Amino acid sequence: MAKPKKTPRPKAETPKGFRDYFGAEVTARAEMLQAIAGVYHRYGFDALETSAVETVEALGKFLPDVDRPNAGVFAWQEDGEGEKPGDWLALRYDMTAPLARVYAQHRNDLPNPYRRYAMGPVWRNEKPGPGRFRQFYQCDADTVGSASMGADAEICAMLADTLEEVGIPRGDYIIRVNNRKVLNGVMEVAGVLDPANPDAMERERGIVLRAIDKLDRLGVDGVRALLGAGRKDDSGDFTDGAGLSDPQADVVMGFMQAKRDSGAATVARLRELVAGSQMGETGVDELEQIADLLAAGGYGPDRIEIDSSVVRGLGYYTGPVYEAELTFEIFDEKGRKRQFGSVAGGGRYDDLVKRFTGQEVPATGVSIGVDRLLAALTAKGRMQRDVQGPVVVTVMDRVRMADYQAMVAELRQAGIRAEVYLGNPKNFGNQLKYADKRGSPVAIIEGGDEKDRDVVQIKDLILGAKIAETATHEEWKDRPSQFEVPRDQMLAKVREILEGQGK
Amino acid sequence: MAKPKKTPRPKAETPKGFRDYFGAEVTARAEMLQAIAGVYHRYGFDALETSAVETVEALGKFLPDVDRPNAGVFAWQEDGEGEKPGDWLALRYDMTAPLARVYAQHRNDLPNPYRRYAMGPVWRNEKPGPGRFRQFYQCDADTVGSASMGADAEICAMLADTLEEVGIPRGDYIIRVNNRKVLNGVMEVAGVLDPANPDAMERERGIVLRAIDKLDRLGVDGVRALLGAGRKDDSGDFTDGAGLSDPQADVVMGFMQAKRDSGAATVARLRELVAGSQMGETGVDELEQIADLLAAGGYGPDRIEIDSSVVRGLGYYTGPVYEAELTFEIFDEKGRKRQFGSVAGGGRYDDLVKRFTGQEVPATGVSIGVDRLLAALTAKGRMQRDVQGPVVVTVMDRVRMADYQAMVAELRQAGIRAEVYLGNPKNFGNQLKYADKRGSPVAIIEGGDEKDRDVVQIKDLILGAKIAETATHEEWKDRPSQFEVPRDQMLAKVREILEGQGK
Repeated sequence: MAKPKKTPRPKAETPKGFRDYFGAEVTARAEMLQAIAGVYHRYGFDALETSAVETVEALGKFLPDVDRPNAGVFAWQEDGEGEKPGDWLALRYDMTAPLARVYAQHRNDLPNPYRRYAMGPVWRNEKPGPGRFRQFYQCDADTVGSASMGADAEICAMLADTLEEVGIPRGDYIIRVNNRKVLNGVMEVAGVLDPANPDAMERERGIVLRAIDKLDRLGVDGVRALLGAGRKDDSGDFTDGAGLSDPQADVVMGFMQAKRDSGAATVARLRELVAGSQMGETGVDELEQIADLLAAGGYGPDRIEIDSSVVRGLGYYTGPVYEAELTFEIFDEKGRKRQFGSVAGGGRYDDLVKRFTGQEVPATGVSIGVDRLLAALTAKGRMQRDVQGPVVVTVMDRVRMADYQAMVAELRQAGIRAEVYLGNPKNFGNQLKYADKRGSPVAIIEGGDEKDRDVVQIKDLILGAKIAETATHEEWKDRPSQFEVPRDQMLAKVREILEGQGK
Repeated sequence: MAKPKKTPRPKAETPKGFRDYFGAEVTARAEMLQAIAGVYHRYGFDALETSAVETVEALGKFLPDVDRPNAGVFAWQEDGEGEKPGDWLALRYDMTAPLARVYAQHRNDLPNPYRRYAMGPVWRNEKPGPGRFRQFYQCDADTVGSASMGADAEICAMLADTLEEVGIPRGDYIIRVNNRKVLNGVMEVAGVLDPANPDAMERERGIVLRAIDKLDRLGVDGVRALLGAGRKDDSGDFTDGAGLSDPQADVVMGFMQAKRDSGAATVARLRELVAGSQMGETGVDELEQIADLLAAGGYGPDRIEIDSSVVRGLGYYTGPVYEAELTFEIFDEKGRKRQFGSVAGGGRYDDLVKRFTGQEVPATGVSIGVDRLLAALTAKGRMQRDVQGPVVVTVMDRVRMADYQAMVAELRQAGIRAEVYLGNPKNFGNQLKYADKRGSPVAIIEGGDEKDRDVVQIKDLILGAKIAETATHEEWKDRPSQFEVPRDQMLAKVREILEGQGK
């Protein structure tokens, strides 16, 4: 350790945008990840854990030819050797880029198709904000090497099973499925996508996409304005529109509102809308296949539905896209009711592996926002808030520490969480305050008098707290919260009290 | 994604010194960490998860006043704001430095003493070598705020319980305990440590420490030479000695060889050796207390023993030090038998929190080298090598995918790992090769003929492989590995086969 004799004391602070997780925050997440891994495993997905660090070159989004290629990622340059400059390394910003690297690197050894899941932290070098952290957990499952719609349908079904497994009951979530090709077909019919010249009118398509994405917030009229001449918001700011004619805008609006009561009716409506676009028809066929496969597995529209208004940052998606939304209401920070919203999403992408190998490899996958899902369960009161506190053996006589250690050893060997008080034992009140802070269910006391008579005092702290809060004197008399038992009955009595508290 | 039209293709490689973990490598580690966390929890330790990133200032080992303060750590500088330069951030290199920061930051809210455990990867910016990686797992437990030897004894007992919990049986490990104060007392008696001037003769003490640490490798004569004039090794290289006189060296050698048949006898021998040194006597008292506490908990010298030859990179330790060694033999890379060696270690340190607050806070803790422990269990054949493969439903008829999805949905809902083949189904041989690569226990086949008769074919692939390998024609006749059953008995038959394979 550096001895900071002359330098000022370092600040004891997490870096901006990072945080610490304590006790139940850690174990609840670990339990959730384990439950998710169980479902992924059942679906035939294998675990993969890549290191946190990748070359910037392999991550791909950022190029090593600028001085500090760390916009969006945490990056640094390795020391070079002689004339040769060192590689730029970076922390992964998602789980998909490392998967593409792994698949390209190990493709001859991996099963094909390759189903894999990955869970762990990712890092984003962004300006931190309230509730926005620069390290957070993702939990992904992807199938690489399969062009079958079976792969997409399976991931949607798995997502439904996963949500139910971690404690979101059926009815409290909906998984929505759409298809990028249908959207492109609609763009084609609306005249903003020319298959012969797909790069033209990119600006217009971008505006259309962003407008659809804002349907929730802007309403039908707002979106319509953005498809046309543009929109002035409440503050007076003007957002440029895509400049679509009315008939063109009608097509797009029709797409957004194509959802019908049944999957088959939605598919039929979409088929009308994309009539004449080959890509659009392929997309509708794919949606229909997914709907059929899901129905065969028993996943009806109460869990998974086709919804053409789903537009997920469609950047690299090439076919089906899907999103899981929690539909129950919570109160936001301003006390207003709102739906909890999206906790997972994904889709089909084909270009990621091609970057490395030149070969197009079809792939589809989902990413669960673990921290958001935990927040949802907490908001619903379905999350364990506290870790069970330990039985605390108090220290009445410092030189008899060996006796107290023997007690905790006995309790621990019986599987009971227990500890001896290890602070300064002088002030007994501090020991009980400590037990309180630890959420201890039981305290054990053995002073010299008890030792002489070979007994111990056992305090039921949960009952004691209840009595102190609410009970009358009569009740107190009937239900003592402290018991004197022979030393050799300590374990049995502690067990009895713990079992009683569990009820 | 960047479109690499003009740039060369990126290399699909992990950065040097990093690696990927697949399947059972990931799940076996996760299971081990969970088992360890269970023991730590039972001992009253609470989980803590800090972020991977800390300020270089808080990590403390490295100062931000040099241009690139990343010797030993992966570090980078944040963008500044205006004139103000950005903070230097770094990946944690262990779990102890973040604990000190957390304790200093949150000490008013944490219970005191604070028992915490932490598990996760740490990063070292070192030259990678064979089997040496720049990211690896640690699993630590520390008690902060207790000066009691009870804290040290408890961690030793917990370490023993942990090793047994993960599959190292009693007798295959030994935990050795020593005390830095005893060593300092011996140094004092030997005349290389002056309590009134503790910084003098640091060079000599350093040589003595390193010499003791090399006892295993150099033997008694080699260590003796290093304590005196110095030592020439087989290659002719000369290592300077500490320059101790013969009587001085005798004291140190006596210390190293102080271990007796019982803890009490070892303590008595050490007491002789440090006679006259107050610090030494305090150290022996502490060792005696730990031995008594452990005996009271039932932890005898078959599991935890006092051994004065234990010297763990004693840099910042101030009292007890402890180390867990696996005592069974394995074959090293050159085919020679050797003991597996150390898998965990720790001790008492008092300065870490003081850096932040100015207050000395006593602390003691252990770190388990998770990857080494996994390697040990693998070497003993006690580790699950493969993940159970999924039941593979083959695709005989591409348009009947919905039927196959219904089959896997049925199996999965019954808790059976299952998947439908999602590659190109044209070549049926490829499907069986895939099942083989996946380690599938069972394959299910339903062609048009089976569909018409409402039956499925179920292949027991494990038995099939055994028959192909070893069985005579007679045995084959008696034990078919393929069964035709009505479709509605598929689940029952698969279950029956899986249960039979488990035997």
